[in-house]
Amino acid sequence: MYESDAGLLAPGRAGSPAETATGDSALLQAMLDAEAALTRAQAVCGLAPAEAGRAVTSAAADAGRFDVRDLALRARAGGDPAVPLAMALAAAVEPDVRPYVHRGATGQDILDTAAMLVAARTLAPLLDDLARSADSVARLATAHRNTPMAGRTLTQHAVPTTFGLKAAGWRSLILDARDRLSAVRESLPVQLGGVAGTLAAFEAYAPTEDIDGIDPGLPLVQAYAGELGLAEPLLPWHTLRTPIADLAGALAFTAGALGKMAADVLNLSRTEIGEVTEGQGDDPSVMTHRADPVHATLIAAAARRAPGLAATLYGSLAAEDERPAGAWHAEWEPLRELLRLVGGAAHHAAELTGALRVVPYAMRENLQFTDGLIVSERLAAVFAERIGRRRAEEVLLSAADRARAETTDLADVLADVLDEEPGLAGLDLGELTDPARYTGCAGSLTDRALDRG
Amino acid sequence: MYESDAGLLAPGRAGSPAETATGDSALLQAMLDAEAALTRAQAVCGLAPAEAGRAVTSAAADAGRFDVRDLALRARAGGDPAVPLAMALAAAVEPDVRPYVHRGATGQDILDTAAMLVAARTLAPLLDDLARSADSVARLATAHRNTPMAGRTLTQHAVPTTFGLKAAGWRSLILDARDRLSAVRESLPVQLGGVAGTLAAFEAYAPTEDIDGIDPGLPLVQAYAGELGLAEPLLPWHTLRTPIADLAGALAFTAGALGKMAADVLNLSRTEIGEVTEGQGDDPSVMTHRADPVHATLIAAAARRAPGLAATLYGSLAAEDERPAGAWHAEWEPLRELLRLVGGAAHHAAELTGALRVVPYAMRENLQFTDGLIVSERLAAVFAERIGRRRAEEVLLSAADRARAETTDLADVLADVLDEEPGLAGLDLGELTDPARYTGCAGSLTDRALDRG
Amino acid sequence: MYESDAGLLAPGRAGSPAETATGDSALLQAMLDAEAALTRAQAVCGLAPAEAGRAVTSAAADAGRFDVRDLALRARAGGDPAVPLAMALAAAVEPDVRPYVHRGATGQDILDTAAMLVAARTLAPLLDDLARSADSVARLATAHRNTPMAGRTLTQHAVPTTFGLKAAGWRSLILDARDRLSAVRESLPVQLGGVAGTLAAFEAYAPTEDIDGIDPGLPLVQAYAGELGLAEPLLPWHTLRTPIADLAGALAFTAGALGKMAADVLNLSRTEIGEVTEGQGDDPSVMTHRADPVHATLIAAAARRAPGLAATLYGSLAAEDERPAGAWHAEWEPLRELLRLVGGAAHHAAELTGALRVVPYAMRENLQFTDGLIVSERLAAVFAERIGRRRAEEVLLSAADRARAETTDLADVLADVLDEEPGLAGLDLGELTDPARYTGCAGSLTDRALDRG
Amino acid sequence: MYESDAGLLAPGRAGSPAETATGDSALLQAMLDAEAALTRAQAVCGLAPAEAGRAVTSAAADAGRFDVRDLALRARAGGDPAVPLAMALAAAVEPDVRPYVHRGATGQDILDTAAMLVAARTLAPLLDDLARSADSVARLATAHRNTPMAGRTLTQHAVPTTFGLKAAGWRSLILDARDRLSAVRESLPVQLGGVAGTLAAFEAYAPTEDIDGIDPGLPLVQAYAGELGLAEPLLPWHTLRTPIADLAGALAFTAGALGKMAADVLNLSRTEIGEVTEGQGDDPSVMTHRADPVHATLIAAAARRAPGLAATLYGSLAAEDERPAGAWHAEWEPLRELLRLVGGAAHHAAELTGALRVVPYAMRENLQFTDGLIVSERLAAVFAERIGRRRAEEVLLSAADRARAETTDLADVLADVLDEEPGLAGLDLGELTDPARYTGCAGSLTDRALDRG
Repeated sequence: MYESDAGLLAPGRAGSPAETATGDSALLQAMLDAEAALTRAQAVCGLAPAEAGRAVTSAAADAGRFDVRDLALRARAGGDPAVPLAMALAAAVEPDVRPYVHRGATGQDILDTAAMLVAARTLAPLLDDLARSADSVARLATAHRNTPMAGRTLTQHAVPTTFGLKAAGWRSLILDARDRLSAVRESLPVQLGGVAGTLAAFEAYAPTEDIDGIDPGLPLVQAYAGELGLAEPLLPWHTLRTPIADLAGALAFTAGALGKMAADVLNLSRTEIGEVTEGQGDDPSVMTHRADPVHATLIAAAARRAPGLAATLYGSLAAEDERPAGAWHAEWEPLRELLRLVGGAAHHAAELTGALRVVPYAMRENLQFTDGLIVSERLAAVFAERIGRRRAEEVLLSAADRARAETTDLADVLADVLDEEPGLAGLDLGELTDPARYTGCAGSLTDRALDRG
Repeated sequence: MYESDAGLLAPGRAGSPAETATGDSALLQAMLDAEAALTRAQAVCGLAPAEAGRAVTSAAADAGRFDVRDLALRARAGGDPAVPLAMALAAAVEPDVRPYVHRGATGQDILDTAAMLVAARTLAPLLDDLARSADSVARLATAHRNTPMAGRTLTQHAVPTTFGLKAAGWRSLILDARDRLSAVRESLPVQLGGVAGTLAAFEAYAPTEDIDGIDPGLPLVQAYAGELGLAEPLLPWHTLRTPIADLAGALAFTAGALGKMAADVLNLSRTEIGEVTEGQGDDPSVMTHRADPVHATLIAAAARRAPGLAATLYGSLAAEDERPAGAWHAEWEPLRELLRLVGGAAHHAAELTGALRVVPYAMRENLQFTDGLIVSERLAAVFAERIGRRRAEEVLLSAADRARAETTDLADVLADVLDEEPGLAGLDLGELTDPARYTGCAGSLTDRALDRG
Repeated sequence: MYESDAGLLAPGRAGSPAETATGDSALLQAMLDAEAALTRAQAVCGLAPAEAGRAVTSAAADAGRFDVRDLALRARAGGDPAVPLAMALAAAVEPDVRPYVHRGATGQDILDTAAMLVAARTLAPLLDDLARSADSVARLATAHRNTPMAGRTLTQHAVPTTFGLKAAGWRSLILDARDRLSAVRESLPVQLGGVAGTLAAFEAYAPTEDIDGIDPGLPLVQAYAGELGLAEPLLPWHTLRTPIADLAGALAFTAGALGKMAADVLNLSRTEIGEVTEGQGDDPSVMTHRADPVHATLIAAAARRAPGLAATLYGSLAAEDERPAGAWHAEWEPLRELLRLVGGAAHHAAELTGALRVVPYAMRENLQFTDGLIVSERLAAVFAERIGRRRAEEVLLSAADRARAETTDLADVLADVLDEEPGLAGLDLGELTDPARYTGCAGSLTDRALDRG
Repeated sequence: MYESDAGLLAPGRAGSPAETATGDSALLQAMLDAEAALTRAQAVCGLAPAEAGRAVTSAAADAGRFDVRDLALRARAGGDPAVPLAMALAAAVEPDVRPYVHRGATGQDILDTAAMLVAARTLAPLLDDLARSADSVARLATAHRNTPMAGRTLTQHAVPTTFGLKAAGWRSLILDARDRLSAVRESLPVQLGGVAGTLAAFEAYAPTEDIDGIDPGLPLVQAYAGELGLAEPLLPWHTLRTPIADLAGALAFTAGALGKMAADVLNLSRTEIGEVTEGQGDDPSVMTHRADPVHATLIAAAARRAPGLAATLYGSLAAEDERPAGAWHAEWEPLRELLRLVGGAAHHAAELTGALRVVPYAMRENLQFTDGLIVSERLAAVFAERIGRRRAEEVLLSAADRARAETTDLADVLADVLDEEPGLAGLDLGELTDPARYTGCAGSLTDRALDRG
């Protein structure tokens, strides 16, 4: 259709499980699942015949029977697609079942519940992809536990580090994302409250009064949650939007966590740096010198977009009344977009980490870029212990100036200097100026980080 | 398709011209238009045979011949859909024409140009809808030039104003939006620069050297712009994203301008206020006491979302190199979303303003809510001129207290008070306490604002 | 000073504990605390003499001894204030202690740790204020468990609810905020890693090699955390910004949670609605009919600002290298602003909820606004059970039309109708049309929500 | 003071003209200027004695006479600092002048006008700094019109470009920013409307009725604008926030424009790339191999923050009623922050561009990184014209493979290949493989861009 979005602008998510799980068809199916579960739950609670539950479930089994575009257009009248769908579903069952379709519910009950189902169904493959990435990155960290590379700050070589520590850091963020997303997934609640969150309409149809002093609406919420495998909320949350905000935060975090890894990959992939590569891509151009970091690029794009989407969702917390005029409607598309954007990024990350080529040779080469100055911090410390901080700095600065002027290595210059500086006699310059010997606790930190389950 | 977005979550734009103008099919057509124009422009400049221009134009005439989903999936490899499309288009022409498809261009030339075409094609109906709204609102302002209503600050009645002035204010914002969007529309440029913005590849194919000292690449840009009816940029703007930022700003402004009107309509529609109504909606529920302000709700939702989308686009200005790894890719969907979101809001606004029912009776009733205190500012001023500010305040405060205690009107209480306060003798209390007589320059301001063309 | 910000534009936080806890003096003190703790921790680990720890602690005890403006200006050279402070602190101790000031650390170690200290010190009073609000709101919910009021959706009266349920919902959000902030507070870590997060410099000064195979840097981190009462991180987090993102999310959530309450208070305070009031404010104007909801206004303003600040912090997760050139620097002010903005909002919320006046009379009056139609949902359900859905709707619609035409109450019209509709004979119209009898599970839900600790 | 912000976290703006122009003292002075101008304007219009204008002007001449912190604290009661200031100002004049202080105005009249004054006073030095940057960058573009360097896309070398073209692009963005900011500066309006924007209170004090049919309020606005050198608005804009949105857009654009330059400088400064350097900084560390791009870092940080601040301002457009409860209050600090953040960035940019060292040697060296493949696009084009696209690709791919395998230059391999490929005989490989000869229209484009005034 002319109006639809088939992913042409979305290589970041096209073909990903998250895309399928969040498409309009998937959402429509989730709404149908919610409707069917509601009728079944009413049957469980004695508010509807069991047969109605079965009939609605059957009619709601396949979103393909409903015209999603027509529903989209009919949503304009009332502002949301739930009422048109309830009418279409009622029309799809026998007349005697019709009264039990959507009975007592408000559109928001269905749409919010469907959003939670879509979230749960998207988070499953997203978490799988994070697990794949965590595994791949753990392998990289283990393999390169002792691979030295330049640590960089404000774009400049600072002191040595290891690729193992860097990869362990990526994993740490991925596990942080996993923990946050998993916690949110466990807490995703059904929505059920009727028009104003009092569950009054369900009781209006109730054949009996309270049983054992329990409002009949409360067991209905429990049964509804049970039918859908979602959590039972303490209160209807029509304008208590904690679940949406929690999703927003966890997803924005995940985008940023993957974005940090992508930022590193992009820099380390630069033609002049070449310490990692995503591997020969499929770009059918003749420019064969290129190995575009496409996965990292698309993850980086997701990391740029996620915060703005999350901000809109956080902004929708401030929702007036029992259903707000705008704040709720402003959630739908950003939430869906955030799910599929981050889901797509996680999918790219799994591919990226599974195939990342690390180039220890380039890392070693680049460590030489500053002609030994990358270990000046160590030399300053060791010299200072022996000849005082001030003299140590003088010695180092003059050696560094000479090394730069003569374009020779700092170690060579220092060999001469040490002869003239009795306090420094006997130092093992070979070890002191070897970047690989100045990686501090990188190995221990890597081990410790990899122990985290 | 399971993955596509048919608008189910988008009643704010479903069925609007903006939705059609920004769909994947429309975007694909714009990309094809850009490709065809590029070949024709090369023909104009003697860089390709005229026949090639005709052949590519013919092959590119109907986006329906290309599989948009397949292109979306193939875009994953290189990160954008332009290269897959160029290949598909080349496959659709005769072998001898193939070399002239996409020749010398980079994917960004096509995608950026297509984005500008899509923007231009969306802004046309959007501006029409703004014009409709401006006309409707002007009629309201004229009709209600002298209709008094409560001016409200921090939710409280403050002093009287008129509905005419309020409507004139809405129009002022709509015209501001129109001016900003029109200016941007006039400036939308083609993109053409080749891989790094030097136009080098076009010259690599050029049969001759400079003609009259003019680099042959420059006339090509001009010809390309001419073919598409877009502006000729001073420089290729692969990483000089002024056009995107200008669109972002003007669209976010428009969303907010319409959002102000929506915020007023929502408040004035409240059951307890009832000063305007969108009219009996089509909500097929039995709750016939409701007249949900659905248009205003969906506009308000757009106003909540637009700033976050614009922020992402402003953020993408900081784009490194000749093509950034992420900043560019992060623009596509937010820009499209902003266009259709605001386009949809403008469409709703045109419907809203065309049918808005104003209830002067309710406005007049509500002016009585504070039992006359809404004109206390005037009384304070007039009294102060006669008996000094301090004494005036005393008189007013005690009268107000009495009016509140006796639940009578301030005017009645004051009639008694004036007898005891010689300095205030002879004042025309009827006029002084009439809210309709304390609307200041509202009428003149309305006239002045309506004079703006 | 001409340049400083004394809160003139910040009534939302002026005078709040959060403001004091986040001011430049407080930040400077936190940086000094971090420096002192680092030297002491080195003493604990045998990397410095105990005397140095004492001397630095003494010199760092009072931020007032340092010129904060001068430090701010000197921060321009290197881009952050930590190095100038380290130099100033070194100058404030005896020469023999100087080498132990800031030894082995990088500026980010100090600034990040100070940010965590400031966060912890701001969250303490913020959580106190939330607790005060939760208590006040619990009292309101208990007191108004059965106070009926109109439930409102899309600005329109929908069905009845209770003020108790509304207040219970506010409390639910406040407790959600408390839980999220408390969890973050427990996890706030020190930062210690040296220039590139390897802790190498600390070992460069270390007198001995590994003790029992443990890198000497690791116990140092533990000792540092112990000195400051912060958590020990698994890894240096120079570019693993989980703590910042967690703060961003929890604070943005809190702003929104309070913002929901503020949105309700603002609407319910409207002159025409008048169901709650913040009480007579201190506005020294003569317009005594006003009771501006100032607390709610300032909370609402905070809720509008927090998401954008959080978005910037989430965006900074994507930080390249071992210290990024910009992403880190972009965190400082938004994090501080978010802390004091939300801290200020929590303070206003505590005042708001402690003094909120609820007006049950107005709630009862407003329930009559639709002449009984607010219970039409119930009537439709009850009638439908007896005479079928279609006929029930016919009866109700015609009664509603008549009630509106005659401006009488729906109950009166229905009394006539029921005489003509045998299937509805015997219904207790008095009960069925009483809004107070159609509040569903509102009471039970309120109880349940108040049970949450 | 403990609570104040002296810039410790703000090296991006500390010491800049924008910081001084936006500090609380400057804002307080602007509010005083607005008050004084209002009384003078009333005098001009015959609504107050000329002496009152002089007396208020004198009392308002020095913000230092007022206690800014006390005003900040007193702003809590009514939610804004204008009323406390008006009272303080009234207390500072003789009793007979007091009635003419703030007469007829609402706090928003003063605060909005002061915001416009602050904006105008900040934009002046900001535009000066942009002009300095534009000049410096123009010099760079001219000097390096023909300096070849690698064009980079998605982090990889693509085809050659020139540093001149890159610098011309920076200038283009700076001029775009200048144009947008200048246009906004010209349009900054005074605010004057009284409580609800009707100007009624000014007329309540008016001694006479309309003169020549002109409402006396309108000339007052004109006189007020004249006194302050700001524009006269068509309508009071209490809730028509176009001026704020225009500032937001232009400032966010400026941040992004400078951010693009900073992004380039950061990448080109990388230790491995070294094509530009900010010059030896003042970082007093011993790591003398570093030349931290501090200016670029702080500009980049500003570019990350500006969009979120602008988004909050765009979001505040949707402001209900005649003064909104929150949307207005949410503007103050983001607007001020945006002004000083971007003002600070512009100041850093002026320093950055004035001292940037360009290293043509490194550019030339880096062009060799791909062993000649950076011109493969050209070779492909030229070969294709002679032997067809398919054969050309075969030849190039095999040559590139061989060059990579033998780690020799592509040109050397091609010399062999050409002997075996008759169709390619006679080509001048020296020219074809020289990156400096494949810069397309870079020179012409640079010239054209520099012609822009």
